[in-house]
Amino acid sequence: MNKTLLTDLYELTMMQVYFNDESNKDVTAIFDVFFRKNPDEAGFSIFAGLESVVRYIENLRFSDEDIDYLRSLNKFSDGFLDYLREFKFECDVWSVKEGTVIFPKEPLLTVRGPILQVQLVETAILNYINHQSRIATKAERIVRAANYDSVLEFGLRRAHGADAGIQGARSSYIGGMVATSNVLAAKEYNMIASGTMAHSFVMSCDTEYEAFKKYALAYPDDTVLLVDTYDTLKSGVPNAIKVAKEILEPKGYKLKAIRLDSGDLAYLSKKAREILDKEGLDYVKIAASNSLDEYLIKSLKSEGAKIDIWGIGERNITAKSDPVFGGVYKLSQIECKDGEIIPKIKLSDNVNKISNPCFKKVYRLYDNDSNKAIGDVICLKDEIIDEEQSYILFDEKDIWKKKKAENYYIRELQEKIFDKGELVYELPELNDIKEYCKKEVDTLWDEVKRFNNPHKYYVDLSQKLWDIKSNLLQKYSKMKG
Amino acid sequence: MNKTLLTDLYELTMMQVYFNDESNKDVTAIFDVFFRKNPDEAGFSIFAGLESVVRYIENLRFSDEDIDYLRSLNKFSDGFLDYLREFKFECDVWSVKEGTVIFPKEPLLTVRGPILQVQLVETAILNYINHQSRIATKAERIVRAANYDSVLEFGLRRAHGADAGIQGARSSYIGGMVATSNVLAAKEYNMIASGTMAHSFVMSCDTEYEAFKKYALAYPDDTVLLVDTYDTLKSGVPNAIKVAKEILEPKGYKLKAIRLDSGDLAYLSKKAREILDKEGLDYVKIAASNSLDEYLIKSLKSEGAKIDIWGIGERNITAKSDPVFGGVYKLSQIECKDGEIIPKIKLSDNVNKISNPCFKKVYRLYDNDSNKAIGDVICLKDEIIDEEQSYILFDEKDIWKKKKAENYYIRELQEKIFDKGELVYELPELNDIKEYCKKEVDTLWDEVKRFNNPHKYYVDLSQKLWDIKSNLLQKYSKMKG
Repeated sequence: MNKTLLTDLYELTMMQVYFNDESNKDVTAIFDVFFRKNPDEAGFSIFAGLESVVRYIENLRFSDEDIDYLRSLNKFSDGFLDYLREFKFECDVWSVKEGTVIFPKEPLLTVRGPILQVQLVETAILNYINHQSRIATKAERIVRAANYDSVLEFGLRRAHGADAGIQGARSSYIGGMVATSNVLAAKEYNMIASGTMAHSFVMSCDTEYEAFKKYALAYPDDTVLLVDTYDTLKSGVPNAIKVAKEILEPKGYKLKAIRLDSGDLAYLSKKAREILDKEGLDYVKIAASNSLDEYLIKSLKSEGAKIDIWGIGERNITAKSDPVFGGVYKLSQIECKDGEIIPKIKLSDNVNKISNPCFKKVYRLYDNDSNKAIGDVICLKDEIIDEEQSYILFDEKDIWKKKKAENYYIRELQEKIFDKGELVYELPELNDIKEYCKKEVDTLWDEVKRFNNPHKYYVDLSQKLWDIKSNLLQKYSKMKG
Repeated sequence: MNKTLLTDLYELTMMQVYFNDESNKDVTAIFDVFFRKNPDEAGFSIFAGLESVVRYIENLRFSDEDIDYLRSLNKFSDGFLDYLREFKFECDVWSVKEGTVIFPKEPLLTVRGPILQVQLVETAILNYINHQSRIATKAERIVRAANYDSVLEFGLRRAHGADAGIQGARSSYIGGMVATSNVLAAKEYNMIASGTMAHSFVMSCDTEYEAFKKYALAYPDDTVLLVDTYDTLKSGVPNAIKVAKEILEPKGYKLKAIRLDSGDLAYLSKKAREILDKEGLDYVKIAASNSLDEYLIKSLKSEGAKIDIWGIGERNITAKSDPVFGGVYKLSQIECKDGEIIPKIKLSDNVNKISNPCFKKVYRLYDNDSNKAIGDVICLKDEIIDEEQSYILFDEKDIWKKKKAENYYIRELQEKIFDKGELVYELPELNDIKEYCKKEVDTLWDEVKRFNNPHKYYVDLSQKLWDIKSNLLQKYSKMKG
């Protein structure tokens, strides 16, 4: 399906007003995507969604059917509809890479180009980034809570539609999950597909043993048996052991795992482990599922649950604890034909909702010895930080709060993605993104990664940007009062 | 995109085991979709997603590319892959209609057919029904909290991907919203597209007045002005009034509305109303948005907010308060070639997770005088309720809790959708579904619709079904010990 109309109507109504005014023809605008708050009161988030944004932009064109539909709304002039028919995306786009650790207020993705064009792409860009960053962020928490055990993505049936299942599986992979039950997602993104049997399969056979036996004979090198259909410890585990010893071992195979999907997972896993070990089946892994998330996994771990493999469904794929990633897309600068540059700021009585003006970039400072991230500096696009000199980070509001960085190196977070509408970025392989994401998280101090009351990571403005922003706020404050 | 692989891998691994066993070739199985709990502690839910299920089933076929991919997994035999290549869906499907008021434990959608086939469709069916029922249910609550004022769907940028935005907009429409900002969804489903301007538009112009003026000149018969970019009461509302009087009125047009998107919506709407009325602009409506949901709307209403139009985004489109609709798909009966019928039940230590066996249907009983719904009876497919006789409803667990229905009429909730794989149901127009949904909600007593501690609606089993279920539970209890 052509996604060009995947936009809010107001993008188009605003575009037409810009179009009507000849003086806008040569106006360049800059918009930034940023977010205001880490979900789940966390100390950081993970960026995802760029591949979808790239595909969307590459396919951005209005079909005749689209134009006919827009005409039917009786809102748009023939001139404007002709403009849309010929529409070709010609903006510059910079973005942080998928898998990057991100923090509130930073420009994540920046679009610069003709004001009509930058406006059009707002809604779809936000949709993709908000959804996929939310799931990647959630999945990373879950995998970390599981202490990097094998974590499998099982959420398709509870996802918010097909895309949520497919892109959610991909985002979960970025966050560190190792496989997905979703066959279409696995196919599209070259992920490992995983799955065994449902209760219905066990129920459809005359006995649990018969079900296990049939399954083991079909997949002797990949047998995972669901043991909780009738009675986990009295029936499921003993039948699994019988199959391991009587069916698989004689043929030279080993039962891979049993799966628990209900009941007291801490108690049942410990008991099952005991029984399996006593029978010499210490090689059989224990998988568990049932509305798990980072909080339940931490609790199970602290109770000494003997779970090796975690199947994660609804609470990851919907980000149940906090399903909204509040990325926004705000105007930060207007550039006129005559060279005049007008920094723009979104005001609000709510100080946290005030945006940062100007054409910007973000530097991340790393400690030379530990390679840990020290803090981020949002600065003007042409600012340079000299790594040879110490750098003073200061809090935007409480400017007396300062931190001197010494012995550090820097990295610019955004890379160029589109140059005047042409893709200049090579989309990485999913496995590389996943690996990069893991490395990114490893650059954070444990205090930032903490689940409860994490340390607030420094994200400060450069002196130049702070000065411009303060002056703008002063100006508006005088206007109001 | 072909959605045939939109399934969990285990559906396919189980299918192959069924396929391997010749004796399964003529086995018919019956599965029911049902859910266990109304989201948000509500008294009822709304069913949606059937149209997507129908489209999915109609397009169910494995492409060569799908087969090649499955072969690459090294799990499937050539024989089974050949079977998939020739796969043609031949099941019977019954379902309640979209927009129907539904309750936990009722069979909502039932699939009957060859056991391999009924297994395959589980995941996609659950994905569509869970997502869309969740959003329709949430939207209906929001519209009801707004006391059927105009409620607009604005969620695309925070939806979990493109489908979540598109199907979410459609589901919100079913729940009673009157328009959507999502152009693609509006086009696909013939909904009203709605939208005006963003803060960026106001900011891009030299002054707020200039922005309003340009917009009014472009859309004089549909001007909604966003008044909170700088200062709602001191700048936004006065500028809107100036445009209404100096630009629109002289041309014979009326300003349609102003929109508030931040701040204290109760206070600002009351003050704005006062100012507008004093200027003779009592015809100008007030629209509001900003992370609204049914709880905030109720609170604003109780404070006397003067809001006529509600724009609803992230909290509806993600069902933020409770984003998971827990529909499941469970085996309820196996029918062998020799005519033997084996009712199946899913056991659990958690009594609420025990499923209902047998081939079933649901009757809803309505009071003849009030046309209000009295209760639902889940019974065997061939059971008939005689409306001339009184009917005793009884609680499944506390069987001494009884209610005698007299002077009632009945309605069977499920309709036949597919007959041996052939579509026999005419998909209704979206506006008809929306209207039907409103009527459905009107059949409920206020006590069931209450937001806090709603009355529990009766959903009971017929005596025959209760007897079969009790016997099965007895049998398994004896087996265990």
